[in-house]
Amino acid sequence: MFNLEAYISFWAKKINSFLDDYLSFDETNKGLVESMRYSIFAGGKRLRPVIIYSSYGIFDSNFEKVTPFAAAVEMLHTYSLIHDDLPSMDNDNFRRGKPTNHKIYGEAVAILAGDALLTKAFELMLDRKINMDVEPEVMLDVAYNLAIASGEKGMISGQYLDVLGNMNEIKSTSTIEIIHNKKTAKLIAYSAEIGAILGYATDMDRENLKKFGEKIGYAFQIVDDILDIEAFDEILGKDTGKDKKLNKITYPAIYGLENSKKKATLLVEDAIDIISFYGDAATPLIEIAKYIITRSK
Amino acid sequence: MFNLEAYISFWAKKINSFLDDYLSFDETNKGLVESMRYSIFAGGKRLRPVIIYSSYGIFDSNFEKVTPFAAAVEMLHTYSLIHDDLPSMDNDNFRRGKPTNHKIYGEAVAILAGDALLTKAFELMLDRKINMDVEPEVMLDVAYNLAIASGEKGMISGQYLDVLGNMNEIKSTSTIEIIHNKKTAKLIAYSAEIGAILGYATDMDRENLKKFGEKIGYAFQIVDDILDIEAFDEILGKDTGKDKKLNKITYPAIYGLENSKKKATLLVEDAIDIISFYGDAATPLIEIAKYIITRSK
Repeated sequence: MFNLEAYISFWAKKINSFLDDYLSFDETNKGLVESMRYSIFAGGKRLRPVIIYSSYGIFDSNFEKVTPFAAAVEMLHTYSLIHDDLPSMDNDNFRRGKPTNHKIYGEAVAILAGDALLTKAFELMLDRKINMDVEPEVMLDVAYNLAIASGEKGMISGQYLDVLGNMNEIKSTSTIEIIHNKKTAKLIAYSAEIGAILGYATDMDRENLKKFGEKIGYAFQIVDDILDIEAFDEILGKDTGKDKKLNKITYPAIYGLENSKKKATLLVEDAIDIISFYGDAATPLIEIAKYIITRSK
Repeated sequence: MFNLEAYISFWAKKINSFLDDYLSFDETNKGLVESMRYSIFAGGKRLRPVIIYSSYGIFDSNFEKVTPFAAAVEMLHTYSLIHDDLPSMDNDNFRRGKPTNHKIYGEAVAILAGDALLTKAFELMLDRKINMDVEPEVMLDVAYNLAIASGEKGMISGQYLDVLGNMNEIKSTSTIEIIHNKKTAKLIAYSAEIGAILGYATDMDRENLKKFGEKIGYAFQIVDDILDIEAFDEILGKDTGKDKKLNKITYPAIYGLENSKKKATLLVEDAIDIISFYGDAATPLIEIAKYIITRSK
């Protein structure tokens, strides 16, 4: 029997231990790095790293070499949360039950901590000493695609559209799929894809894993928005019902809760179809996909 | 006779033309990319790109291959200006005589535009199609060192110390050299260094160019702070006298104007000494070094 909780916990420990060693400070940047570490160790589920390991596991088994890349993606994800929470963006006071970065360290340091985590994600992926088992061409491929997935045509443009939504500048509902796809799905799809790249998968396998990631990433965002409506503050650990207050364009806000749940379920079923071809090796990813629609936080 | 103005203008045109083509948008990110382009084309001197070309010119002459790297450094520099100008940081309303990014596009978009330019700088350096004449190992070397120079031990920690200064949390004057070195000199030193890397210079030459860049970078920041005190608003195109208002720890604030001018001159003389060894090939860099202490804006 596959135990998802134990599985996630196993990889989360690897990532946490790596990042704990990696994020060090000196006298001149102590407060800055403390702020970076605060958000890194604020209780994230490490979903993206676990997806990377799981995707990689379909193709190869030298998991040690994957850790720096998985840690880099987690740093990039964390920067995006710090910046998204800022007063000028979503103005969130809590995340995962804890005060957001700027509530503790102030806006200026929170912005710089985000900038530094973003920069550090690239530094880590491009470090030849740390990644000595990875060929330069593969390092370039993986780091270049991180920039594409998270840049002004990817994740950042999703957040940009979200911000326009906050400002009521988007009236059309046709953008909802674009926002979700870019804001959340791009980085999750990328995580599934680089597992394949690092495992020397064929172009077709790489494309399969990316599509799988896109679908569960879209489902993940829909479920997030459903939870925002349904969940209690205590369970989610952040201000709930907030999307409605901000007039955010979310899937449940447009199509209703029932249709949203159906849509998320369909996406996850599609995703599982794509990778069921890989048999038992795909079990972790399949269980992660199922978890995405059953989670309560 | 070497004409510095014409020389700078020649390379600036190359960079501007490249960036004009490179920074394109679609329907979903139009406003975001407009905001990125606004700051990119707000009249920057392109000093860092010109230093890269000039350093490279000592060792090799295939200047076309340098352009994407020079453009990437300019994007990274521009992101740092957008974020430094934000209300929670230096709260600047004008830069180079134009309203700062957040005054036009709002804080949220300005933060995202900065994030996107930072990400795009790495995307460009890591693009194998664009940089087909550059070996993967060299691309990694150059991009990795950009992360080091601009990250939480480099440029960002300089800005962090600057922010602490704004908040009056730094009382000691011994940090002034650290702040200047990190905030400004790191990226200028990096620019001089990667010219050498791209030109296949020896490790010793690479180190020389880096030291040259550190010294003119430090001088550049001292002169900036002198100009902040001396210059008129119209000449500099930004709010002057602002450092004093913010109680910023600057070289002239601590050591006075005369000592600051002497210090900047000494640094530039040292810098020129380091590269005079390269003879006529070093003329552009020597003229740039001299310009740094004679400029009025």
